[in-house]
Amino acid sequence: MSRGSTEGDLTKTGMALKHDREWDYELDRIVEAIEERDATKVGLQFPEGLKRRGPNVADDLREAAPDDVTFMLSGQPCYGACDLDTYLMRRTDVFVHFGHTPMKESDSIIYVPLFSNVDPFPIMADALDELPEPDEDPDVGLVTTAQHMNRFEEMTDWLEERGYEVHTRRGDDRLTKEGQVLGCNYASADIPADQVLYVGGGKFHPVGLAMEHPEKTVVIADPVNNAVSIAEHDQFLKQRYASVHKAMGAEKWGVIFCTKIGQGRWEQAQEIVENNEDAYLITMDEVTPDRLRNFDMDAFVNTGCPRITTDDGPRFHKPMLTPGEYEAAIGEKPLDSIEFDTFHDTW
Amino acid sequence: MSRGSTEGDLTKTGMALKHDREWDYELDRIVEAIEERDATKVGLQFPEGLKRRGPNVADDLREAAPDDVTFMLSGQPCYGACDLDTYLMRRTDVFVHFGHTPMKESDSIIYVPLFSNVDPFPIMADALDELPEPDEDPDVGLVTTAQHMNRFEEMTDWLEERGYEVHTRRGDDRLTKEGQVLGCNYASADIPADQVLYVGGGKFHPVGLAMEHPEKTVVIADPVNNAVSIAEHDQFLKQRYASVHKAMGAEKWGVIFCTKIGQGRWEQAQEIVENNEDAYLITMDEVTPDRLRNFDMDAFVNTGCPRITTDDGPRFHKPMLTPGEYEAAIGEKPLDSIEFDTFHDTW
Repeated sequence: MSRGSTEGDLTKTGMALKHDREWDYELDRIVEAIEERDATKVGLQFPEGLKRRGPNVADDLREAAPDDVTFMLSGQPCYGACDLDTYLMRRTDVFVHFGHTPMKESDSIIYVPLFSNVDPFPIMADALDELPEPDEDPDVGLVTTAQHMNRFEEMTDWLEERGYEVHTRRGDDRLTKEGQVLGCNYASADIPADQVLYVGGGKFHPVGLAMEHPEKTVVIADPVNNAVSIAEHDQFLKQRYASVHKAMGAEKWGVIFCTKIGQGRWEQAQEIVENNEDAYLITMDEVTPDRLRNFDMDAFVNTGCPRITTDDGPRFHKPMLTPGEYEAAIGEKPLDSIEFDTFHDTW
Repeated sequence: MSRGSTEGDLTKTGMALKHDREWDYELDRIVEAIEERDATKVGLQFPEGLKRRGPNVADDLREAAPDDVTFMLSGQPCYGACDLDTYLMRRTDVFVHFGHTPMKESDSIIYVPLFSNVDPFPIMADALDELPEPDEDPDVGLVTTAQHMNRFEEMTDWLEERGYEVHTRRGDDRLTKEGQVLGCNYASADIPADQVLYVGGGKFHPVGLAMEHPEKTVVIADPVNNAVSIAEHDQFLKQRYASVHKAMGAEKWGVIFCTKIGQGRWEQAQEIVENNEDAYLITMDEVTPDRLRNFDMDAFVNTGCPRITTDDGPRFHKPMLTPGEYEAAIGEKPLDSIEFDTFHDTW
């Protein structure tokens, strides 16, 4: 998705480093697990924006761990907790996934969320200009990402001290923490407030939130890039309608089932191919334009990561739709039913 | 590797279609296996150049198989029998791999080699001009690829009828058939003859053979593109020396362990990281420039597919060496020991 492909532009990744952030890699916890399990093989997985840090983390761990331990860095692309390197996980005694909170707790995985040390409050103070005064409308939702979860309660208190009624939710099973959003899931923003304050790096998450909740104003307080803005979603529906229209005459449909552990929607994929004899089930982990170019289809339905469909759709040689948009394209649902495709299960 | 990336240029893939080739997909054998095993999920994997045929093959199978069978096309890149979609294999009742002979026999896989119907003898007749007359030097090796294995005995007879002493071998465990070559293994050409006749499509295989056996003349009789030529290997050593020289000052080495079932050389990879504290083990399936760019290394050693190193090396941002070249670069072996990296095990 665009997070991986917009090389050099880290503003969309939540990983932009305008501030000199330091991460807590929780090395002690990892070394403890290595010793407890007498591990000899340890796998380390970092998301794209932090892969460069991997070798240094491995150095620090080598120094602290017994000599007979082999450390392996996952070279697979990684964009979320949905995206575990299960090959490496199954072949190592200890497997550490950095940069995300658990999508589902598991004894086989040590999650190190990498909490940011950036102070969120100066930029939150700036962001208040974009919210109504509390005496005008006190209701505000508050959401953030894994990197800032450690300050979430403090943020809530800070807003309450300033007179706001702060609405937060844990969301559904896919979300581990109160107030947490993912690129594909904004259930934590299903709260009774017309505005939501997003505190975190980049626009990837808040733009998703604005697409899912076009009726809400999403204010971005970005402490990493030190910027306040409003999440835009104007182009979203226009682009989606355009893709649906292009796909409408399709004679052959490629239905993508993503094999990444947290990105598979098997029943949706199978239902489509069972009910459409012109649909073909295609399985893959990374969904890329190159890979789909090999298939002679008129349109694709992506049951995997919705952000590949909505954000990267135009990079594919044929229109790519979400499962809901597919139903509109084949006339099973009205066109105006189209909405942002969210992902709610784990695995 | 270049087979996948030189889009539109099929001459390197062995899949160029100057002749109207028809393939025998052995549908009856597949349907029989489906019925025997009461399969409800069937996986189909095609190599890159044949992925477009997948939907039609799926259509034909749907028509012949019971109604409750779901067919899945693998969307993973595939470049050889080393490159099975093990995810799909493990999750389907019948898994069919098209376009390659078995690298290792397995009950879990139906291999459909897709023998070509192209007549090899007219171009073999043309190729005789490039071989010495039999009374001058009768010894000639004969090799081919999976697509033409079905005519291999006929080809041998044809050459013998013309006065040649034809030398053929099965090669080692990685090669299933007499006279067969792979992009990474030319053990079938270890025969007492100064010239080897390669009959098959494209230059990918014969150029590898020429790199492995620079002392032999490799004559290409390509019945697909209807062309005769001599396989070139002049640039090979020059390029390899250049890469080794560039890598010589490296402070940080990335050691790639490829997780594809037939491309893993675990012991080699582990030995390197055990003996070099500046080496980091990186695991991945597809070895691509994008994926390695995320790692801040000065040079890479690729223990996976040797053809990615030799053919695609220049596309990577840092020098990439074979395990043997790495030894030369760190001074453990003389520079003139460098040779083509071949692959001999299965899994």
